[in-house]
Amino acid sequence: MKVEGKDYQSIWIHPSDRNIVQIIDQQLLPFNFKIINLTTHEEVFDAIKKMQVRGAPLVGAAGAMGIYLATLHLKKGDDMLAAMIQIAEKLKTARPTAVNLAFAIDEIMEKISVLRTVGEIQKTAYDMAIRRIDTEREYCRKIGEHGVKIIEKLSKEKGGKEIHILTHCNAGWLACIDYGTATAPIYLAHDKGIKVHVWVDETRPRNQGSKLTAWELGQHGVPCTIIADNTGGHLMQHGMVDLILVGSDRTTRTGDVANKIGTYLKALAAKDNHIPFYVALPSSSFDFTLTDGIHEIPIEERSPREVTHIQGMKGGNTIEVRIVPDDAQAVNYGFDVTPARFVTGLITERGICNPDEKSITQMFSDIMNK
Amino acid sequence: MKVEGKDYQSIWIHPSDRNIVQIIDQQLLPFNFKIINLTTHEEVFDAIKKMQVRGAPLVGAAGAMGIYLATLHLKKGDDMLAAMIQIAEKLKTARPTAVNLAFAIDEIMEKISVLRTVGEIQKTAYDMAIRRIDTEREYCRKIGEHGVKIIEKLSKEKGGKEIHILTHCNAGWLACIDYGTATAPIYLAHDKGIKVHVWVDETRPRNQGSKLTAWELGQHGVPCTIIADNTGGHLMQHGMVDLILVGSDRTTRTGDVANKIGTYLKALAAKDNHIPFYVALPSSSFDFTLTDGIHEIPIEERSPREVTHIQGMKGGNTIEVRIVPDDAQAVNYGFDVTPARFVTGLITERGICNPDEKSITQMFSDIMNK
Repeated sequence: MKVEGKDYQSIWIHPSDRNIVQIIDQQLLPFNFKIINLTTHEEVFDAIKKMQVRGAPLVGAAGAMGIYLATLHLKKGDDMLAAMIQIAEKLKTARPTAVNLAFAIDEIMEKISVLRTVGEIQKTAYDMAIRRIDTEREYCRKIGEHGVKIIEKLSKEKGGKEIHILTHCNAGWLACIDYGTATAPIYLAHDKGIKVHVWVDETRPRNQGSKLTAWELGQHGVPCTIIADNTGGHLMQHGMVDLILVGSDRTTRTGDVANKIGTYLKALAAKDNHIPFYVALPSSSFDFTLTDGIHEIPIEERSPREVTHIQGMKGGNTIEVRIVPDDAQAVNYGFDVTPARFVTGLITERGICNPDEKSITQMFSDIMNK
Repeated sequence: MKVEGKDYQSIWIHPSDRNIVQIIDQQLLPFNFKIINLTTHEEVFDAIKKMQVRGAPLVGAAGAMGIYLATLHLKKGDDMLAAMIQIAEKLKTARPTAVNLAFAIDEIMEKISVLRTVGEIQKTAYDMAIRRIDTEREYCRKIGEHGVKIIEKLSKEKGGKEIHILTHCNAGWLACIDYGTATAPIYLAHDKGIKVHVWVDETRPRNQGSKLTAWELGQHGVPCTIIADNTGGHLMQHGMVDLILVGSDRTTRTGDVANKIGTYLKALAAKDNHIPFYVALPSSSFDFTLTDGIHEIPIEERSPREVTHIQGMKGGNTIEVRIVPDDAQAVNYGFDVTPARFVTGLITERGICNPDEKSITQMFSDIMNK
């Protein structure tokens, strides 16, 4: 998608040096747009940990790139596989909730574990990391194509009037490789000339909505308005929301959806006000081994500092300020689980799927039986 | 309630000089605790306007004190009443939406309009301003006594284990005179030795939860933890909330509750997780003329700047920073309405009332028929 009129992805190989992976430092957005070079798996680990890259599909792609970068520093010897396994296990711990990270890493590790030469390992890791990026990109494009039909239908029903879509957190192209998941149908609708307007939940405590989603929508020219996370219920009660589109960090085989903390509250309000609530996700964000999202999906607890302090701009500088009493306690859960009964449908690269075990099994049996 | 071990109210007459009214400057909390002297009705007007005092009951009490202070500067003459009427009308404009302000001022004006001497007017204004404070204080104390029974029962059911109470915004003693509304049962339970812990919603965009509720609970020694507004649903799904207690800005005769934006979302989650959701309010916060909260209660739209900017502390100074992209749009609705069907009960100074027209009419028929 576009930044200052130019097309970008969220991760790519340096155009003239295959030993360098490049990312946009999402920690600095929306105040600074800065591209960072990564050359080791440790740097990838740090970039994930520090949330310079975030969003399940992008974290998966970054993990794959981390494995690729690690192979560049491999030295021939009997312990090559052991060394790679150790790196892979460490890399996976950078973000426990998103299943994509482990998936992307394991996928490469399985292939390279049977290879003998450093050259073979490097080539395979490179090819698979690139394939991961291409696959995620293509999945998002397809999610957009399936999802845009929902917006087109609503637009027709409203006689072409503006469709108001509420989204939570950033399931945009910044979180993926391109297009985004929740935003893919929105970008496609906008590019097709359908009138859309997005209510962007600021998404405390990290404000990925106001900092990232509002930024990327704005850069691409999609009309949007930032709201406090408390606001969505009121808007829905007053007919000011036509559709809710969110992403997912992990979805069970039964359709329970783990996503950024607060998603569940919006799903409750959508149900109460008969507003369609769709979750957009690639098949890689399913965890087909799980049947009970609330009890089986581990929820990351993050630093209380994200609640007690906030970064903002003052006179051209980024400043962090404390926004609570001096010795106040805070907790910070990163995600919550929206039970399947609140989900209208799952928009995947294969089409729109009902959020139940039968429909999910039907659509993804080939992957599930792998 | 206590601040640094000493008992305070949110407004009082100077102990050794009846010509001075004292308040806590709530604009500076939680970063600075500063007591301000008010000696004229103009200073009271400014204190309300600048939100140095806020919260419907406190604003009403401040208005009454403003009238009292104005009488101290009255000069005997034919135009005494005209002068007072002018002052009263001006004072009422300091917060046009708070019905308590006009109510408290009109109440005094009605009485003093029939008096002739400056001395009589001053004495009556003083007595009535004090009575307003005492009445609000007493209402909150009674709300506490009725509400604490709910906590006592839960505590017994949990064998004396800590009771986790979630609250939204500040319906604490800072908003009232003492005790608070939603916090009154909590303070009483704590003072009785019942183990309580409060989840404090930070309450974006003005953060009255993290700035005021967390501060006042902390000062009084009540254990509390600040959470992002997105978090409550997750906590409720995982059995980490035993009770929800909130205040109300206006409640209909049918039990629909207008309160700080986001309250509705917590009520939805409480219902979905079978957690009791109680609203604490004095009878003065009912609007007995209304039957449909969602469609009849006007919702204040405030400055987008409260969403796009935030105040915090940095190196001992209070600084405001911008937290959204440069040219981002935002909207800021102040309140939402929780339909009666999500409310377990209304805790009033007269007792706990079911949130329906019949029960409310039964409990408040004398006021409704006035």
